[in-house]
Amino acid sequence: MSVSVTKIASNKTFGGILSKYTFKADSLGGLDAKFNVFLPSASESSKFPILYYLAGLECTEDTAPWKGGFLRDAAQEGIALVFPDTSPRGAGAEGEDDSWDFGTGAGFYINATNPIYSKHYNMYDYVVKELPKALQSLDLPLDFTRESIFGHSMGGHGAISLYLPPWGQKAFTGYLTGGIDEGKAYDSTELIASAKGKNLNILIDYVRRPLRSVTRINSTKAGQLLPENFSAAARSAGFTESQVDVREQPGYDHSYYFISTFVPEHIKFHSKFLKA
Amino acid sequence: MSVSVTKIASNKTFGGILSKYTFKADSLGGLDAKFNVFLPSASESSKFPILYYLAGLECTEDTAPWKGGFLRDAAQEGIALVFPDTSPRGAGAEGEDDSWDFGTGAGFYINATNPIYSKHYNMYDYVVKELPKALQSLDLPLDFTRESIFGHSMGGHGAISLYLPPWGQKAFTGYLTGGIDEGKAYDSTELIASAKGKNLNILIDYVRRPLRSVTRINSTKAGQLLPENFSAAARSAGFTESQVDVREQPGYDHSYYFISTFVPEHIKFHSKFLKA
Repeated sequence: MSVSVTKIASNKTFGGILSKYTFKADSLGGLDAKFNVFLPSASESSKFPILYYLAGLECTEDTAPWKGGFLRDAAQEGIALVFPDTSPRGAGAEGEDDSWDFGTGAGFYINATNPIYSKHYNMYDYVVKELPKALQSLDLPLDFTRESIFGHSMGGHGAISLYLPPWGQKAFTGYLTGGIDEGKAYDSTELIASAKGKNLNILIDYVRRPLRSVTRINSTKAGQLLPENFSAAARSAGFTESQVDVREQPGYDHSYYFISTFVPEHIKFHSKFLKA
Repeated sequence: MSVSVTKIASNKTFGGILSKYTFKADSLGGLDAKFNVFLPSASESSKFPILYYLAGLECTEDTAPWKGGFLRDAAQEGIALVFPDTSPRGAGAEGEDDSWDFGTGAGFYINATNPIYSKHYNMYDYVVKELPKALQSLDLPLDFTRESIFGHSMGGHGAISLYLPPWGQKAFTGYLTGGIDEGKAYDSTELIASAKGKNLNILIDYVRRPLRSVTRINSTKAGQLLPENFSAAARSAGFTESQVDVREQPGYDHSYYFISTFVPEHIKFHSKFLKA
């Protein structure tokens, strides 16, 4: 079955073009899936390497193009950016709009096994398999042999989980019938431990406290995303700081004001490998 | 009467601090007025020059900090930014919420003389007189002897009107009892003509078509903001391109994707004079 992808918006910016597309995604139960693509130049003849950006809770495919401030850096580096949405939209699944951190806007880049969600909530398959096919169906100057991925918060964890082999098929209470224990296949701290000996390059900037998950739903624990644990697991697996660099950024919060501050360095980080 | 200004939010970004404040503004009929201030460094001992940014229709004091992508440039140049709102909020004046380009979010940086609006809609007095006093009441490292101003769309016109002497007191059908003819005191093309011989420095980037005013309310005319007329009036008044530079940017639209592309150059433009 061929993919029918429709362009619904286009803006010239930083000498390039940001275009918004939509298509009916099988992995999301046939729902309309929107994404943005930034091409650094409208007239380039060669193909651009691709950097995927996975957004955080409550965000959409538009949040980073609007608030991230890094189209500029991608334009300078000559890198294409791809921005998927964070969940299916309008699935009608039970409870999907009851909270900010589950369901709509909170797909967590996993495949649901709980039958309530498994028809629509397959953001892993969507990002890893279906979105690249949709991109390939467009006649864009993209080099699919040079790809990298990053993200923020839920999307930062998602990016690491998608990057690190091996990849499991179930995770997290709610989406997964097996609950937390089976979620280890999606847990980046578990994954980094089992990636020992691989050639990895990861850069993480984090802030200690104002994670909304800490204050809102998990205030008795240190938080849901535990970068110190990830860093320790990386060291235990023998990865050096130049391979897996985890940096705390004191004084910053969890917002796009934090992202936009450090994202230029992340673009350069990815550029180094994409253009190596 | 002393001004009581309250800080309601604060975010570290680009090594500096973006803070949001509110106070009851007399020029806006005592309504709460919110504004943002970006300081390039939290620990600087010297005072920063000030660049005011006037936003366009439907925007707030948050739009440019979120979508403009230029806190980064201000941080690099060591310039403080001030972001006022675009109108009073909640005045309850007749018709103020009926359209996107009049009333709420559309104060046009003028003082209303129409009695329906004259209690609250005095954004000229607010930006030129009351906001600087509110800023001065805060203990911030701001240098009020070095100020500059810029903006987008309605705010771009507002910035020119506030910058160019002489300044009138009435304008525009709706807000002004005298209508269009009396609005010439707020019309930048009129003002540039009468500024002949002054020492001026103005940089304008514009796009020809997708001004929303053109398509939405004025489709039979060329548009409401006429940069070519402004440019011609500047030349007639003897201003060179290095004094008044008006540049069309083909292919771009009227959005923040356009702004963020060219704003780094505008920050550098203002910096040159602010730090001269």
